[in-house]
Amino acid sequence: MKLSVKNLDIETGGMPVVIINIKDAKKYDLHLEDRVLIAYKNRKLEAMIDIALHDRLIRPGQIGCFEEVSQVLTARNRQLVTIHIDEKPSSVKFIRKKLDGEGLSKKEIQQIVHDITHDKLSSVELAYFVAACYSRTMTEQETILLTQAMVDSGEVLKLHRYPILDKHCIGGVAANRTSMIVVPIIAAAGLTCPKTSSRSITSPAGTADTMEVLANVKVDLKTMKKIVEKIGACIIWGGALNLAPADDKIIRVERSLNIDAESQLIASIMAKKISVSSTHILIDIPVGVGAKVETMTEALNLKHGFQMIGERLKREITVLITDGSEPIGNGIGPILEARDVLWLLLRDPRAPKDLERKSIIIAGRLLEMAGISYGEEKARNLLLSGQAFNKMKEICIAQGLKTLDPEQLKPAKFTYQIKAKKSGTIKLISNKHISKIARVAGAPEHPGAGIYLLKHKGDKVKKNDSLCTLYSGSKEKLKYAVELLSEFFPFVIH
Amino acid sequence: MKLSVKNLDIETGGMPVVIINIKDAKKYDLHLEDRVLIAYKNRKLEAMIDIALHDRLIRPGQIGCFEEVSQVLTARNRQLVTIHIDEKPSSVKFIRKKLDGEGLSKKEIQQIVHDITHDKLSSVELAYFVAACYSRTMTEQETILLTQAMVDSGEVLKLHRYPILDKHCIGGVAANRTSMIVVPIIAAAGLTCPKTSSRSITSPAGTADTMEVLANVKVDLKTMKKIVEKIGACIIWGGALNLAPADDKIIRVERSLNIDAESQLIASIMAKKISVSSTHILIDIPVGVGAKVETMTEALNLKHGFQMIGERLKREITVLITDGSEPIGNGIGPILEARDVLWLLLRDPRAPKDLERKSIIIAGRLLEMAGISYGEEKARNLLLSGQAFNKMKEICIAQGLKTLDPEQLKPAKFTYQIKAKKSGTIKLISNKHISKIARVAGAPEHPGAGIYLLKHKGDKVKKNDSLCTLYSGSKEKLKYAVELLSEFFPFVIH
Repeated sequence: MKLSVKNLDIETGGMPVVIINIKDAKKYDLHLEDRVLIAYKNRKLEAMIDIALHDRLIRPGQIGCFEEVSQVLTARNRQLVTIHIDEKPSSVKFIRKKLDGEGLSKKEIQQIVHDITHDKLSSVELAYFVAACYSRTMTEQETILLTQAMVDSGEVLKLHRYPILDKHCIGGVAANRTSMIVVPIIAAAGLTCPKTSSRSITSPAGTADTMEVLANVKVDLKTMKKIVEKIGACIIWGGALNLAPADDKIIRVERSLNIDAESQLIASIMAKKISVSSTHILIDIPVGVGAKVETMTEALNLKHGFQMIGERLKREITVLITDGSEPIGNGIGPILEARDVLWLLLRDPRAPKDLERKSIIIAGRLLEMAGISYGEEKARNLLLSGQAFNKMKEICIAQGLKTLDPEQLKPAKFTYQIKAKKSGTIKLISNKHISKIARVAGAPEHPGAGIYLLKHKGDKVKKNDSLCTLYSGSKEKLKYAVELLSEFFPFVIH
Repeated sequence: MKLSVKNLDIETGGMPVVIINIKDAKKYDLHLEDRVLIAYKNRKLEAMIDIALHDRLIRPGQIGCFEEVSQVLTARNRQLVTIHIDEKPSSVKFIRKKLDGEGLSKKEIQQIVHDITHDKLSSVELAYFVAACYSRTMTEQETILLTQAMVDSGEVLKLHRYPILDKHCIGGVAANRTSMIVVPIIAAAGLTCPKTSSRSITSPAGTADTMEVLANVKVDLKTMKKIVEKIGACIIWGGALNLAPADDKIIRVERSLNIDAESQLIASIMAKKISVSSTHILIDIPVGVGAKVETMTEALNLKHGFQMIGERLKREITVLITDGSEPIGNGIGPILEARDVLWLLLRDPRAPKDLERKSIIIAGRLLEMAGISYGEEKARNLLLSGQAFNKMKEICIAQGLKTLDPEQLKPAKFTYQIKAKKSGTIKLISNKHISKIARVAGAPEHPGAGIYLLKHKGDKVKKNDSLCTLYSGSKEKLKYAVELLSEFFPFVIH
């Protein structure tokens, strides 16, 4: 059939989509999300059908082309394109199979990941895949195949070194910038750690956002390799690389219902780690109300899952279950967190003790995994002697140094003191509420925005004592954040 | 926050959607599918967030309003609207709960159905609901609650009569217009049958499409009530009424993966029947390759499901498992089917015997459910005596008669004979392939298009014997349908 082009100048951001009139849909027996092959001159494109129920936007005989389609076809309005009916990708059948409770083969999983990577599935089809993995649970074998397929879907950093250390935190705890302490310690010990981090999605800062205060984090794979081979380590933004890209598309759909299939979570993390050739991986699972993992049962299941997959994929895995009931560190937001990190590396008395303690434990375990005994002692020495700071300096210079002077790191100018409403002991500091308030105040968009904690869990406070300082770059946002306190007050005092 | 309107003049067809720039999304901590309340003057509207990744369509500070939003706000371009962050509807939590394998309460199911009915869920959220019901399976109690919630979501036809008979066919068999024979027989026996039917979705004709050849089928609830109270029966298009509207929205998402959760299928059918106050319901489950139900195991599970829910909802249910391995009747497509029906009611020798046999069995069982003994004999008498035809005439006149003269029903003018490629016995006539060919030839869009079967399963044929005639209103479509025969030849001859 032939239809007349109407370019819509709107992006859909995923699978290419075209709109046809409902009368044409009936005529050609086409349905929502059916696939068609569109041809114009020598250019061809696979697209998904959307249907206009009225004639206003798309009349019979017309085909509405979203940006992704227009760009490939480069057909002007009113030019005729040829449409052929196409099969749905075979992975749709495999998703259905999993939803039916059947197992998936290596080829089937590879096909699904391939079609996700190449935007061949609609978000509804993708949601069915997530739901299938979530409600049917994947076998160990399937999780391994999914991990491997995700690795194969993107690029891989090849390093001819052994061991290659790495760490990952499941998340949900505000601040908690252990990577920026652990990575320089590991590298100062002469070991290798090609760390990729994420930017914030729902938090006031991701490690990549905080690291970006000190140095450039957008680095390509070739440069990353050079840096790691020279310095032993890096701390860069994983999003700038094409590592396991299928993963990011899955995460987008998971957000709708805030679900996270355990097998997918494990496959997702392991795929990113294997993509950079890591051999010894420490997984930090913070447990606490408001953290990503809220119960010990969940944490133990996850721990078992990681250990299983590590064994099967011949990677050394250590899982630490840590306290996720309050933020780790005092500063929350890129600049405030970066300042904590520098104070800690520079041995400034204002450095947060909880972040130091946790970082030494993690670094110590990683050193022991690499065969170094008395890991914690070694890690503490590397930190106290300033060797970790020197290594951090090397890393920052290699990536593109911005600053390593904590006094240059100025929080945003508008402030507000959050005060205790009554006297008592702080029983809980809600990660969720802290994050919400800090984000509304402007973090991470405005790097200086956020919260600086003055009190911690277990501290005794009197009514009207300052609990923390709120920082914002705009009066309006500060006001909005303060208003939200009535609903999201982060401190529980008894 | 305040944003400047940009009306997009595009409909989304479901939940109202607005697009904001990614920079604003970060600034205000808004994510894909988050809900916002938009206000302009004294008008307010709940909408879902979509995010523009580039500045071309929607710049920072702008809000792109799809048609559904523009219509309510009636704000011109560049006027400022106020946006408040809103919670996701509570049903999202309940869907997640079901996906976690937990049970749902009455209130939770009601909330989900309410939010589906009122377009408050995104298609991804709806897909998660379908997947949850499909992979976790609903309990009997949940299925009953879902049925009741669907009934409550729409209008109800109240009839002060007893019994009220009804029938439903699970589908997948081409032609098979038993309702148009059964309903007049039942009404001729003095019983009540308020039949609502659907239009074709993937078939060459639905009962509503075929009935529309003889009479008007678009009737409102008030008129339907009048007709049924006067004549005892009707055969109208259910889509014109607002019966259990949540159902249609669920079906749309199910099509993506071609799944049909058993509990949802049952709830969906029962809800439509209960909405018209039916008390005695016969369910026809055709089983065969290419029919909707392909195996006897599935059919028996479904039968059990219907019987259970009938018992719990105090409705008499009879389930017939019938042969779905070939079309029932000779004509396929609205006019060809309507002609078969009239020939049958008028006792013309050209009437299809298989359709007569099946209709008498169904009508007989329904009469027996209503307490009439020797149902089949009674049904046959009502048909043979012309009483069924007279009742059909009354029904058509009440709805708005078009014709009852089969000689006026002319198939489309372009024809093609499909011939046997070898001699042998017909082992199978694929419903799926017959439907595909008939649809491509133009059915049901062109009422005269379709297929007329000259041979049936079990018939012996010689090479080059005509098996059926293909009818189409356009040479081009006929050519396309004929081309498809190489891939979708409907007859299996051995």
